[in-house]
Amino acid sequence: MDKVILDGKQVADKVKGSLASRVEALKEAGVTPCLATILVGDDPSSETYVRMKGNACKRIGIESKRIHLSKETSTEELLEVIDELNQNDGVHGILLQHPVPAQIDERAAFERIAIEKDVDGVTSLGFGQTAFGFGKYPSCTPAAIMRIIDEYKIELEGKHAVVIGRSPILGKPVSALLLNRDATVTICHSRTQNLPGIVKQADIVVAAVGKPNFVQGDWIKEGAVILDAGYNKGNIGDVDYEACYEPAGAITPVPGGVGPVTISMLLKHTVDAAELTL
Amino acid sequence: MDKVILDGKQVADKVKGSLASRVEALKEAGVTPCLATILVGDDPSSETYVRMKGNACKRIGIESKRIHLSKETSTEELLEVIDELNQNDGVHGILLQHPVPAQIDERAAFERIAIEKDVDGVTSLGFGQTAFGFGKYPSCTPAAIMRIIDEYKIELEGKHAVVIGRSPILGKPVSALLLNRDATVTICHSRTQNLPGIVKQADIVVAAVGKPNFVQGDWIKEGAVILDAGYNKGNIGDVDYEACYEPAGAITPVPGGVGPVTISMLLKHTVDAAELTL
Repeated sequence: MDKVILDGKQVADKVKGSLASRVEALKEAGVTPCLATILVGDDPSSETYVRMKGNACKRIGIESKRIHLSKETSTEELLEVIDELNQNDGVHGILLQHPVPAQIDERAAFERIAIEKDVDGVTSLGFGQTAFGFGKYPSCTPAAIMRIIDEYKIELEGKHAVVIGRSPILGKPVSALLLNRDATVTICHSRTQNLPGIVKQADIVVAAVGKPNFVQGDWIKEGAVILDAGYNKGNIGDVDYEACYEPAGAITPVPGGVGPVTISMLLKHTVDAAELTL
Repeated sequence: MDKVILDGKQVADKVKGSLASRVEALKEAGVTPCLATILVGDDPSSETYVRMKGNACKRIGIESKRIHLSKETSTEELLEVIDELNQNDGVHGILLQHPVPAQIDERAAFERIAIEKDVDGVTSLGFGQTAFGFGKYPSCTPAAIMRIIDEYKIELEGKHAVVIGRSPILGKPVSALLLNRDATVTICHSRTQNLPGIVKQADIVVAAVGKPNFVQGDWIKEGAVILDAGYNKGNIGDVDYEACYEPAGAITPVPGGVGPVTISMLLKHTVDAAELTL
């Protein structure tokens, strides 16, 4: 089989393309899909991410409602803002940009988002529903990984998937989604012993560890599918692309792999949520 | 190291022993801890399980409120019963005996149980909270497995745990609990390829597959810890005990292993829930 470079930009364009007519139909029905983004503080990367998401919304006709709170915001104040957005019928999705300043109880804030508007897939309820197979909005990066797998018709049933990382928005939900699609799933993390030996068994490798160029070429089984969910400073992934390209059967580049699809899944979830209010 | 037979009865007695003074203190404060059990239909094994649980409650001073519904009960009728129990301040825990008759939407019924009273750990919210590390009442069999591991001071950090089975009340939550304790976790199931080879790598094996004597002796690595969560007809576990005893470093018998601890965790969760109402 030829080596496949998994082109996230192409997948993202396809997803976004499929949303245009749905957004139009919603507007004809009197509903403008709207994503509210909450940014707390002045972290420059967070500002960039929120702006990118807002612009992506606008380009396909989704309204972007941007809320920017000062870095001194308290947990209570943030919860009040979330409550208002939960009650606002004009808002279909709520995204709280991570990370928030240290004085805020981030988990409490995530948990406060109404399940119907949790298009970013951050609540424990949303995660539980996803793990049990009936979640509407899985966390966006895991959803993007599954979308790439589906677009490229990568077989999962009975395959051994090794996920490196166990965060609530990445390692845990992507493991759950792969398991529900009949992969055998191993979840690895910072305490894992003999990580190279475990990765070497994988038919599918998902890197979600947040360390630049962490996954090495000699860890990869010949023909394995590699999905790199990392985005480290300087647009560097968690996978040493040059070294892993050789043994891989298919691989996502960084940039242009999982990243663009992640944003398109956020848009899709927002449109899904708006349609459910009709 | 000597081979250890993990004595569930002893662990269960210790757990129950620690509850006696807590139940007494609750009663002095005017609160009698109460577990409501709902049985739908006439399945003889289910009747036995519910009776066992009720009797276990009574023996340590927990009130057991048994609700027995006819096998023609509709989903709506069952949901109404659950709503009443949710609102009843005298009830601290609710257990819906599985399985329910086919006409009932079992998942909808489980999901209806208020999180504060989900002492059996069946809701997707409870699972999500457990997976994210702040769940109060994990599903009872997984909680029992963790209790046995702790009582016998079995190290988990960095160890490779292989869980066979992926049910919402067993395989999935026990995987989450092991992961949160820093084990590397592999989840296997009916579609897994080369199951013996994967189990052979395990430092910890959890069998939760529901097939009598399924796990074979030559699958087990020398010194592995084996936890058998199976209870098949005739009190037979999922592990071929005779064959696995030889290579195992530690092993739960069936009966007398995970089973008795499971019931004691249900009692503990009910007392926990009652204390939280003080």
